[in-house]
Amino acid sequence: MRTLPIFVVSLLLLSEILVAQDFVVRDAATKKNLIDSITFYALEHQNGYQMLKELCALGTRVSGSKSSYESIVWAKKKMEDLGFDKVWLQPVKVPRWERGNIESCILRSKPLKVKESLHVGALGGSIAANNITGKVIEVSSFEELQSRANDVAGKIVFFNIPFDQKTSVTFSSYGKLGKYRYLGAAEAARYGAIAVLIRSLPSRLDTVPHVGVMGYRDSIKQIPAAAVSTIDANRLSEILKRDPEAEVLFNQNCRNLSDTLSYNVIGEMTGTDTSLGILVSSGHIDAWDKGTGAHDDGAGCMHAIESVILFKQLGLKPRHTLRTVLFMNEENGSRGAEAYAKSIDSDKQKHVAAIESDRGGFTPLGFTVDKDSASIQRMQSLLPLMENCNIFYIKKGGAGVDVGRMKNVPYLIGFVPDSQRYFDVHHSGNDIIDAVNPRELELGSAAISSLLYLLDTCL
Amino acid sequence: MRTLPIFVVSLLLLSEILVAQDFVVRDAATKKNLIDSITFYALEHQNGYQMLKELCALGTRVSGSKSSYESIVWAKKKMEDLGFDKVWLQPVKVPRWERGNIESCILRSKPLKVKESLHVGALGGSIAANNITGKVIEVSSFEELQSRANDVAGKIVFFNIPFDQKTSVTFSSYGKLGKYRYLGAAEAARYGAIAVLIRSLPSRLDTVPHVGVMGYRDSIKQIPAAAVSTIDANRLSEILKRDPEAEVLFNQNCRNLSDTLSYNVIGEMTGTDTSLGILVSSGHIDAWDKGTGAHDDGAGCMHAIESVILFKQLGLKPRHTLRTVLFMNEENGSRGAEAYAKSIDSDKQKHVAAIESDRGGFTPLGFTVDKDSASIQRMQSLLPLMENCNIFYIKKGGAGVDVGRMKNVPYLIGFVPDSQRYFDVHHSGNDIIDAVNPRELELGSAAISSLLYLLDTCL
Repeated sequence: MRTLPIFVVSLLLLSEILVAQDFVVRDAATKKNLIDSITFYALEHQNGYQMLKELCALGTRVSGSKSSYESIVWAKKKMEDLGFDKVWLQPVKVPRWERGNIESCILRSKPLKVKESLHVGALGGSIAANNITGKVIEVSSFEELQSRANDVAGKIVFFNIPFDQKTSVTFSSYGKLGKYRYLGAAEAARYGAIAVLIRSLPSRLDTVPHVGVMGYRDSIKQIPAAAVSTIDANRLSEILKRDPEAEVLFNQNCRNLSDTLSYNVIGEMTGTDTSLGILVSSGHIDAWDKGTGAHDDGAGCMHAIESVILFKQLGLKPRHTLRTVLFMNEENGSRGAEAYAKSIDSDKQKHVAAIESDRGGFTPLGFTVDKDSASIQRMQSLLPLMENCNIFYIKKGGAGVDVGRMKNVPYLIGFVPDSQRYFDVHHSGNDIIDAVNPRELELGSAAISSLLYLLDTCL
Repeated sequence: MRTLPIFVVSLLLLSEILVAQDFVVRDAATKKNLIDSITFYALEHQNGYQMLKELCALGTRVSGSKSSYESIVWAKKKMEDLGFDKVWLQPVKVPRWERGNIESCILRSKPLKVKESLHVGALGGSIAANNITGKVIEVSSFEELQSRANDVAGKIVFFNIPFDQKTSVTFSSYGKLGKYRYLGAAEAARYGAIAVLIRSLPSRLDTVPHVGVMGYRDSIKQIPAAAVSTIDANRLSEILKRDPEAEVLFNQNCRNLSDTLSYNVIGEMTGTDTSLGILVSSGHIDAWDKGTGAHDDGAGCMHAIESVILFKQLGLKPRHTLRTVLFMNEENGSRGAEAYAKSIDSDKQKHVAAIESDRGGFTPLGFTVDKDSASIQRMQSLLPLMENCNIFYIKKGGAGVDVGRMKNVPYLIGFVPDSQRYFDVHHSGNDIIDAVNPRELELGSAAISSLLYLLDTCL
């Protein structure tokens, strides 16, 4: 074995020490007081909650919709009024899909004398259904669909897979079910199905459809797809057990239009040392249209704005430039995230860290970081400073759909609030301002702002 | 300095090692799986939530009320049906107070042409108010009351102190305000007031009174006391600013009756080694009567029952005897806790630990332990085993009003769920089953059951 020259060893040691010092916080007691004051200010003033009320009052925010533009204008003006140093719109072409005004699903069984209306909602991206009538075949997996392939042609496939409650992190159950919503239509059409109904994905029984994006495959016929509420899904399943010949009459007049121009909304608070680069705080401003996207992702947008503006409200001068990014089109294309990621690469804008809030406005628990274990372990030394904003862990994990598009950003970070109630409201008519608790929302802003403060101090 | 004989030193060292091993968990991976299975079972079956629905359907549970006895009978039968080895009632004399059916507070200002009804609720223990009419003096502290002592005689004192939002633990703000509700009447009567109105103590603006217990002092005249909703308190304050001569006409027909017989409900699962002693899991079955005490403390009762019965449902045989105790009369006297504490002392029943759940059925965060720091530090070694039931900390702190009555129990432990929404519902008409999320409730049962399992293993 060759020995390294002594100056190389020294350099290695030095770099090790420098790296190890990433998250050394000097004068920690003072910093702790300061971070606590961020939390207390947010909780006392509840400015984020008041903003969220205004945003939700504007209506729904599907990419390319009229009210999505009103939300963009509102957000830009709000950031200007709050005193961001720079606010601008970043153009981005987005897909356009309209729900229409007809969503109807009638279940009929002659022997059972049943004629009932099921609560359904078109999945985002689906084509219309014009008086589609057919028998229903219920399946509980793609494997079952495949095994009954010969029985599918001319029928409506009903994917009836209940939410798995056996997890303390509801996102993991959601993750397992998402493929049926996204790919169900294409998989069923492969065997000649004429439409699909997908059991909604909430963690509680209710009578509202929980919608979301679906996709087609180029080579496979497009068939219409809708979500059916969990209680209606149970009813449909029960009727099918008693009468397998029961029929459904299905109508919806949603439609896909050509791509259109929309915008990311970006606001900046200039740092005292611009050479240090940019710290991003982000959410997505588009939302599904059954509710008003209060949790998904109005809450995240308020977190992104408030976490930055709290610096101004508390007279803190960040060394790095802080940037609020409200991405357009996370729900059905991530075109906003794509455009932003491309622009920072082509403009060579130095980004040091990017935080995303897209898991609702619930009580904070921690952060996940898309990075090596050693760096995460060093970040964990920050935890004692964040106990008053309810941050208990920093661990390895995905940062989020939007910031995940950025490459070469050293720290990609996801905000993680409690997830127990998220899928009660997610993508449904339940996702409205009344489902948001002001204190829970504000603790989220405080947590993200505190982390920004610590990253600004340490990096 | 004298030197200790060598065998004494050895004994000291040995005892140190034994103590240090209090919380050594052997075969931790297997234990972790087992604890996870407790969590997943609770979340999947949601038995505690189903029980809570039944309990709340029985009505209100003020000590000594008709429906409190129905709840006692229900709880005893429920524990028998679930398969506790022994279930019994422990007699306890409780104070008895009835709300009556008149609660009325009319605000009148001739110059402002105002005649409005304010939402009020009698405080527990208050005497009736029979057509009490008077001008109102608003104060924001006992100090202000004292400084304006000469202005109080013949008037109604209005304690208008808003909830302090500047804390991430809402109990600390509640703690600061409790004295006005409990002592306000006695302090105001000292200076000749004829009644008191107390601004309700919730963390959100609403139109329902949040009630709770109040007390009189022997030597001071008893005057009636009621809580006024926060929105009505703001209105009253606004009117008083514009017309300090505005009057209130106040009626309520609540009354105190003589003490009556009631019961703690106790259930036991016998341990495989009864010499080891007893581990208690507890809540209180009485509740204020504006809602149905779903969070306070129906949730705690379900935690106490379910945390023990999960052992049976999962085929676990505890070494210690596990005991569910549902205390009567926490809200206005703690007579149940007193009787229980006395009985275990007089019967020399060896208790090793007692856990109390009386902070609602929200997502768990941690446990507080009323014990020396060194022991708590040792307990913290259990934390990695409880991450799936959302337990992030074990720290020094009070265990609870009920278990706090027990002396000589080595571990007194309080269950701490997230507190952001607790005072939105607390002691009000909002505290009903609809305010409880099944998954949040069940995670609490799982957390307490997991801790019982670890205590049973380690102690």
